[in-house]
Amino acid sequence: MSLDRPQRGVFVPALTPFKQDLAVDEARFVEHCKWLLAEGANGLAVFGTTSEANSLSNDERRHLLERVIGSGIAPRALMPGTGCCAIPETVALTRHAVERGVLGVLLLPPFYYKNVSDDGVYASIAEVVHRVGDARLRIYLYHIPPMASVGFSLPVIERLLRDFPDTVIGLKDSSGDWNNTEAVLNAFPELEVFPGSEAFLLAGLRSGAVGCISATANVNVAAIADLLRSWREPGADAKQAELTAIRAAVQKFPVIPAAKAMLAAASGEADWKVVRPPLRPLSAEAAADLARMLEALDFSIASSLAHA
Amino acid sequence: MSLDRPQRGVFVPALTPFKQDLAVDEARFVEHCKWLLAEGANGLAVFGTTSEANSLSNDERRHLLERVIGSGIAPRALMPGTGCCAIPETVALTRHAVERGVLGVLLLPPFYYKNVSDDGVYASIAEVVHRVGDARLRIYLYHIPPMASVGFSLPVIERLLRDFPDTVIGLKDSSGDWNNTEAVLNAFPELEVFPGSEAFLLAGLRSGAVGCISATANVNVAAIADLLRSWREPGADAKQAELTAIRAAVQKFPVIPAAKAMLAAASGEADWKVVRPPLRPLSAEAAADLARMLEALDFSIASSLAHA
Repeated sequence: MSLDRPQRGVFVPALTPFKQDLAVDEARFVEHCKWLLAEGANGLAVFGTTSEANSLSNDERRHLLERVIGSGIAPRALMPGTGCCAIPETVALTRHAVERGVLGVLLLPPFYYKNVSDDGVYASIAEVVHRVGDARLRIYLYHIPPMASVGFSLPVIERLLRDFPDTVIGLKDSSGDWNNTEAVLNAFPELEVFPGSEAFLLAGLRSGAVGCISATANVNVAAIADLLRSWREPGADAKQAELTAIRAAVQKFPVIPAAKAMLAAASGEADWKVVRPPLRPLSAEAAADLARMLEALDFSIASSLAHA
Repeated sequence: MSLDRPQRGVFVPALTPFKQDLAVDEARFVEHCKWLLAEGANGLAVFGTTSEANSLSNDERRHLLERVIGSGIAPRALMPGTGCCAIPETVALTRHAVERGVLGVLLLPPFYYKNVSDDGVYASIAEVVHRVGDARLRIYLYHIPPMASVGFSLPVIERLLRDFPDTVIGLKDSSGDWNNTEAVLNAFPELEVFPGSEAFLLAGLRSGAVGCISATANVNVAAIADLLRSWREPGADAKQAELTAIRAAVQKFPVIPAAKAMLAAASGEADWKVVRPPLRPLSAEAAADLARMLEALDFSIASSLAHA
């Protein structure tokens, strides 16, 4: 792999900050995005699961994307999530993102109906491609069965790559199952595969992955970017072990509230803790437990969090 | 129970017909709704799972609700589904429905995030109640773990009934688990409980349920309404056995495509077969198998399907 293409490396599914009344804190979101890029993120997978995107209205998503781009962040650094349950909504969000010049979209399959057929998943994506009808469209398939239940099987990926080779170019694998990631990497060397956790970063890079897209990159992006720069050098395994240990600590808690609690603590901005229902903020006890675990690992969020 | 209250009896989650290009066939939808009411439906739970509501955009849902009410169907006969993943969308759909004078809304919990806490489910519903902020709001909780994964536990129901006794008044139980239905009926005698299948109709009525809301009521509502009228009379068990056998036959197939195939065959309108991805139409072979099974049960859709 090569890291000189901007669409490779660590993409952060940027957390969406809310105010106490649950309104999106747009200014803080833009600040957070800029901080992540300054820390070494190669791009931002805004409106992912970690971003609580499915708890945002589609108008909120469009507005926020405009705001991010208006702040000067390059559209080519953005891979917004646009997959909804209803194809008309997915098409509207995707078209908007493409027209704004984003790198590509991270596409969930429709996720309400369960146990749908491969044919149904294929038809959903094909319908979006046809309806968007824009040669600039680039799709990264978003495989996250723990949340969406519906995922992309190898046969579906194969069929999509065959029929839309210039459009379907990548996949984020948030199955949490390295065997699946490896199977996808082996079966489709042309696909740009991003494991959904930095715990699989080094193994992924060694097997042909192009980076990672990870919730915990919201709090540890500099170290992840460092491993991406140095993964062929001595010491890579030790760096991976550190990343994995930190990830494991955060993962002992619900990851979104945990990462928000970490940012609240590091920035001194208590509002960072706010999540939209059905998620709940981390309890004070859990936040203290997490802080102790991270301290034991000598971890602290980069002091460059000076913007907050 | 008493069936003289209009909000009791059989509510049909009306199938949404599409044209070949997947556009909603609004005229056919209105015809279908009127036919169901003429056949004996007490009301219509439009925009349920069976309606492919989560495959419709929210604008499509609002427009279709206007169209149904504009056709002369009483708003008090309607229990539209309004639950989305994002609270702002749920609030917008719910407020629209309440302003149009519907009987109540059938409310899914936010269903993207999985393994959320009871506290998170409670907070989601409480937030909707507060934001809609309309004393006319009546909520029927929509418990359908096979699709939504997220459901309403007994402790959540208890807390909602305690805090919103004039607002949260009913529950549709589509768990498919009679033990759960019975537990809800026993724990909350004041709640209007609708089993999600007519297979549980008689058992439900005998235990305090107020009717049922069932996918297969789209093709068999007259017989269901008949049992609702006569459930205390001799012969009720035999009628239940017939309903259950027909339901069992349809359930051997994906229920939404199967019910649409049945309406296509009965009406001669092939477009009835169209579903939106991720669902797929029933294959010709499966439709023939289903037709044979139904014929063996002496079942045919009421000849009053003359509207088609």
